[in-house]
Amino acid sequence: MSGFVWLVGAGPGDPDLLTLRAARVLARADIILYDALVNPAALDLAPQARRFPVGKRAGRASTEQETIERLMIRQARRGRKVVRLKCGDPFVLGRGGEESLALARAGVPFEVVPGLTSAVAAPALAGIPVTHRGLASGFLVVSGHAPAAYAPALGSLAPGALTVVVLMGLGSRADIASLLTRRGWRAETPAAIVLGAAHADSHTWMGTLAGLAGAELPGTGAAGTIVVGDVVSVAEEVAQFLGHAEREALATGHGH
Amino acid sequence: MSGFVWLVGAGPGDPDLLTLRAARVLARADIILYDALVNPAALDLAPQARRFPVGKRAGRASTEQETIERLMIRQARRGRKVVRLKCGDPFVLGRGGEESLALARAGVPFEVVPGLTSAVAAPALAGIPVTHRGLASGFLVVSGHAPAAYAPALGSLAPGALTVVVLMGLGSRADIASLLTRRGWRAETPAAIVLGAAHADSHTWMGTLAGLAGAELPGTGAAGTIVVGDVVSVAEEVAQFLGHAEREALATGHGH
Repeated sequence: MSGFVWLVGAGPGDPDLLTLRAARVLARADIILYDALVNPAALDLAPQARRFPVGKRAGRASTEQETIERLMIRQARRGRKVVRLKCGDPFVLGRGGEESLALARAGVPFEVVPGLTSAVAAPALAGIPVTHRGLASGFLVVSGHAPAAYAPALGSLAPGALTVVVLMGLGSRADIASLLTRRGWRAETPAAIVLGAAHADSHTWMGTLAGLAGAELPGTGAAGTIVVGDVVSVAEEVAQFLGHAEREALATGHGH
Repeated sequence: MSGFVWLVGAGPGDPDLLTLRAARVLARADIILYDALVNPAALDLAPQARRFPVGKRAGRASTEQETIERLMIRQARRGRKVVRLKCGDPFVLGRGGEESLALARAGVPFEVVPGLTSAVAAPALAGIPVTHRGLASGFLVVSGHAPAAYAPALGSLAPGALTVVVLMGLGSRADIASLLTRRGWRAETPAAIVLGAAHADSHTWMGTLAGLAGAELPGTGAAGTIVVGDVVSVAEEVAQFLGHAEREALATGHGH
């Protein structure tokens, strides 16, 4: 039998947020190539597999990306079931498209197993709906890693037309807030930063667009998701009732 | 013990695409209120629960929404574990925000279990990455159910700045294509319609923005996701190697 590659999304952090399909694929993998930022607990779903951290983070040199692709292809050609386990969704700022092309060009069959993207799941876990009737009929997701990635979209979109979600943008938040304000967004537009969603040390800052640049954040080094839009006000209203105790009770009941 | 409500996303269709957390919550629910469009197979994860279809679809009268909210609240106050099972993600055009507010106002604790949204998962399953280096550094998701929902965003966004994803927009696709073309998008911009993603009768149309209005689709009545942007070209290139046989082999191996 020939090998096969699955490009699998691990979701925002907690392995409980992998899909059933992802868990099943992991349980039958021969080899797992995983992003350094994937929660190591997800690998517990694949005790039988050999695991290789491939250290991928945003902004690394493309040679490293090529190395990952070569490794996937080589292992698949040896007949192995290869899982490429990526943070969030493989196709949301995750280079899954590049890896798909590399596999297709090498003639290696593959499948995509979508994962929860932090763009939606991080706000959701903080009680923020990216859409809400009367507030936002859609949302926009951009990479905040460089102005070229976000300025064309954020500089043109009509103010308030959609909820804005920025991934990998903590370091750009002053520039992003300034850009939106110049474009005509109200300074008092609600805004939030969700840090380390679905991790034990998660933390949510809520304020306004005017306060975004100066938001004080704990120095956890966690990934952050920025949300700008009136939808943030929903989370402020529900926060008191957004429970986690029951979820933890369920988690400890695992296997019963 | 007091009751509790989980707002759970069922993902795009195949129950295999629920999260592990969703499966665990379903397995312990007393009562499930599920959208009519949720795949009935997902309910097999909750053989112990009483199930009520609540028939929610886009555009229904708000009285029906109020009935759902009253039912959730009443059952939770009786001490029940209530799951509100929704298509896709509860917060992406799913009224999860309204239900959150209703629960909070009634003093009922709740939790959100994010699900895979069709906005990302439907393109992914068809091989279309919503972002791709050099082609799109982000994406935009809008409801296509009425011009007021999509025109402010699509009429302002700089042409080509992001991948455009439209949910519930099959009936509006001529208007959407016209709007984007007037805004300056190239007529030959790649475009796709993914019908019934993660369902047995899924079907993908690929063409260009110019062909979107006249795209001939099988009359399955399935939900459709429209994608406009250069990223569609990636799927065209990888289609031949995007496998499903292996996935089906895994599925039948379920439980081994």
